Amino acid sequence: MSRPVRLAINGATGRMGQALLGLVRDDARFNLVAAMTSPASSRLGQPVFVGDDSLCFTHGWPGANTLDVVVDFSGPAGLAEALTYCESHEVALVTGTTGVDASFSQRLASSAQRIALLRAANFSLGVAVLTRLLREAAAALPNWDLDIIEAHHNRKEDAPSGTALALGEAAAAARATSLAESAVYAREGRTGPREHGTIGFAVVRGGDIVGEHLALLMGQGERVELAHRATDRSIFARGALEAAHWLSGRTPGSYDLDAMLSERAGR
Amino acid sequence: MSRPVRLAINGATGRMGQALLGLVRDDARFNLVAAMTSPASSRLGQPVFVGDDSLCFTHGWPGANTLDVVVDFSGPAGLAEALTYCESHEVALVTGTTGVDASFSQRLASSAQRIALLRAANFSLGVAVLTRLLREAAAALPNWDLDIIEAHHNRKEDAPSGTALALGEAAAAARATSLAESAVYAREGRTGPREHGTIGFAVVRGGDIVGEHLALLMGQGERVELAHRATDRSIFARGALEAAHWLSGRTPGSYDLDAMLSERAGR
Amino acid sequence: MSRPVRLAINGATGRMGQALLGLVRDDARFNLVAAMTSPASSRLGQPVFVGDDSLCFTHGWPGANTLDVVVDFSGPAGLAEALTYCESHEVALVTGTTGVDASFSQRLASSAQRIALLRAANFSLGVAVLTRLLREAAAALPNWDLDIIEAHHNRKEDAPSGTALALGEAAAAARATSLAESAVYAREGRTGPREHGTIGFAVVRGGDIVGEHLALLMGQGERVELAHRATDRSIFARGALEAAHWLSGRTPGSYDLDAMLSERAGR
Amino acid sequence: MSRPVRLAINGATGRMGQALLGLVRDDARFNLVAAMTSPASSRLGQPVFVGDDSLCFTHGWPGANTLDVVVDFSGPAGLAEALTYCESHEVALVTGTTGVDASFSQRLASSAQRIALLRAANFSLGVAVLTRLLREAAAALPNWDLDIIEAHHNRKEDAPSGTALALGEAAAAARATSLAESAVYAREGRTGPREHGTIGFAVVRGGDIVGEHLALLMGQGERVELAHRATDRSIFARGALEAAHWLSGRTPGSYDLDAMLSERAGR
Repeated sequence: MSRPVRLAINGATGRMGQALLGLVRDDARFNLVAAMTSPASSRLGQPVFVGDDSLCFTHGWPGANTLDVVVDFSGPAGLAEALTYCESHEVALVTGTTGVDASFSQRLASSAQRIALLRAANFSLGVAVLTRLLREAAAALPNWDLDIIEAHHNRKEDAPSGTALALGEAAAAARATSLAESAVYAREGRTGPREHGTIGFAVVRGGDIVGEHLALLMGQGERVELAHRATDRSIFARGALEAAHWLSGRTPGSYDLDAMLSERAGR
Repeated sequence: MSRPVRLAINGATGRMGQALLGLVRDDARFNLVAAMTSPASSRLGQPVFVGDDSLCFTHGWPGANTLDVVVDFSGPAGLAEALTYCESHEVALVTGTTGVDASFSQRLASSAQRIALLRAANFSLGVAVLTRLLREAAAALPNWDLDIIEAHHNRKEDAPSGTALALGEAAAAARATSLAESAVYAREGRTGPREHGTIGFAVVRGGDIVGEHLALLMGQGERVELAHRATDRSIFARGALEAAHWLSGRTPGSYDLDAMLSERAGR
Repeated sequence: MSRPVRLAINGATGRMGQALLGLVRDDARFNLVAAMTSPASSRLGQPVFVGDDSLCFTHGWPGANTLDVVVDFSGPAGLAEALTYCESHEVALVTGTTGVDASFSQRLASSAQRIALLRAANFSLGVAVLTRLLREAAAALPNWDLDIIEAHHNRKEDAPSGTALALGEAAAAARATSLAESAVYAREGRTGPREHGTIGFAVVRGGDIVGEHLALLMGQGERVELAHRATDRSIFARGALEAAHWLSGRTPGSYDLDAMLSERAGR
Repeated sequence: MSRPVRLAINGATGRMGQALLGLVRDDARFNLVAAMTSPASSRLGQPVFVGDDSLCFTHGWPGANTLDVVVDFSGPAGLAEALTYCESHEVALVTGTTGVDASFSQRLASSAQRIALLRAANFSLGVAVLTRLLREAAAALPNWDLDIIEAHHNRKEDAPSGTALALGEAAAAARATSLAESAVYAREGRTGPREHGTIGFAVVRGGDIVGEHLALLMGQGERVELAHRATDRSIFARGALEAAHWLSGRTPGSYDLDAMLSERAGR
């Protein structure tokens, strides 16, 4: 085994930060060097792990040559700081911060010329794999009917889920169309026969289901079903760590989970 | 094994009649005595089974003491004849003829005082069992969220399916409510959190799926799933024959598939 | 809403006890009166809920007329104490303590003449419901082939799971046979055609799956599928609290989860 | 739409031949030129379609420049004739004939230098797609546990199915191992924890299930499920026609369904 990847977590007191800390503690692939939080955090200066004073939440960034990769789930302001640091010190950066504006997106693009930068909205590896598989199946079986079912807990307030829509968009693109042209979001009453080439959605809500997505490709006499089931929200932190490990030491550029999976799949 | 049940099929040249003939031919539990069709049928007088002249499609009814049970899928006019015959000869009657008016319903009720009469709109045994199980689960888990998913072929023109609605109605009744009060037929856009006590429906359409129904009862940390999958339309004929075998020799009365299953289940 | 049920938890510092405390804290149906632990526990005298000194772990039992029901997950010694207390004060008792010997079983039986006593090895309501449904389906569809699939995490060391075997035993009993006579535990190589009346098992192991059980009843052209999926071990504590609520105030007798579900199902 | 593909079916009176004829009759993409059968067939000289004398079963092969592609399901002797014809007339050939010996395999390889030749043991498009997806998922998620469940009718005499084994072999290869090194065919009794890197199989038998295969990739907190369900044996004929349409007009070479799907998938 090679030496551990030297890691800092930016946004370490947030929900994702806490999940990352919990995983990284027992993961021999990583050496946690720093856990950054905002200057306003009430936990500043407190130990990162209860009963272990060797590492405390901080607002300052580490010195030169101490880090291989930063994982950021801090928000736009924290991400801006992380970019400045990573560019100066040639450190790779994984970020799940979303909701950045156009000028910020431009800055991210220019940073990717100097450092290895990986962004994602959803760090579940399983969802990333499912997306790739669905894209391929939709292209390989162009005339089969495609519907997507998703199930989430009873507190979810919108439908279909963002992930279901992203899956549908990926499948539509693989068939040279778009959801805007092909989506059928609900079927009720006198619907008439299914229109060829449409992509249907069906929504289940109940209990505390973390998130399940099922794509059905239906032909004559056979069908293919592709599903992802999440049972634990820790999968997002887990995927971000996988990405950090993979990204560490890469040449500058803009990466995403799909690039990581393509490499693994050997193409 | 007791002697075979002596059976006549009324409406024998129709789609269901043909399916019944195909099954009964190889079923040692039955002795097919007659295959009735309408006087206008082009197949009148032709052999019921190709290359076997011993039994031909007929319009006349058999004599006394030749039948144990009639299975009818003929339509209201044919059913009226069957009732007259069965009452005179004390023969049991299984019928899937639907769409009868109020006065006819009254006649059926009065016939059931003289003969064993079993009616059903859907003769799938699996659906009948699923309905019973769902009723029980909905009562036993009164606070769990309930959704029903159904999938059918791409030519189906309405949604949700009649069977999905019947399942929902059975579950609602088991919870002392009704679909009119509790159904949510589609979820799209800003739905808000799931309202407690509702029953949701989700619809899939594609390929040549014969019919699948899945009831999801979703609690905290666990769920129960009850499904029926049909892959062949012959199940309706198969269920009607099961019913005919069970009904033969019973005391007069009005029966349905649920009564047959209750007896099997020992209560 | 009636007044809250007055509850004590025996074995409150154990894994199940902790889970019960977590649930009961936010459950308005209950008033937690006492949390008992063994005299050797290091947590004796400490607050039950962090930052709330009103209730501490104790070894003594509460006075007369302060409790409606005790929930016990303490082990045989703790259960013996609980029985003595409950009998003296006419308090209902729910226990998940297993591994008691024959003379203890006799004591439990005699206690059940004085107090309401509910025992279970598995307090998942969903599994209890699935067992009932499978029993009914196996009886209602006596000629359909039955297989049971179960999936658990990759650390599980035996197969099939105890729950899968219990489901199989329940189904076998409903068909007037037993697993000893009908089970097929693995299929590999030249198996020959499926023997009629057997019950097959199939086992999946992987990831961190908490526990899933699927019973397949397979006929001609159709099938019925009954499944339970657990995603969180808290379901056992949840089921024990449901049982405690239901048991409180009942007449003396020996009860189980099935009795509770029968009552809910109205028979 | 381009002009129809001119097609001959070799082995036209066999089970697969009959299924091909049934499909091709209503498929505007094809022009059926000839239906060959063995010289010993009792149907030689009879009309291919009842009541239509324009095309009869024949033993002779059509003249030059009348065919684009031959679909062969005739057996080794018939395939030898088809190869001779196709080579002479530069006609593409799709064959599902299996069980050829080593010298015949060599002949096939040499034929593929002169004509476009596509062979497959299983012409289900869905299974071919599933195989590709599983290969990709197994490589992309190298540390996730993989099990394969298959279900077939109660008359099937071996386990696991050939398709399940082929899926497992494809997944093993994608992880740089083989089934011989990694397969676990049955789990029963004290199995111990799951060994990392193994591929497990689970087998269901019952009813008249045509064939279902489910690959489960199980990680921490999430899983991916890939399934194929067949409900009708016509899928093999359907896939062979898809292949014939795709192969027609191609340059010489040895092809398989995977090559067709790769092209569709754009790589």
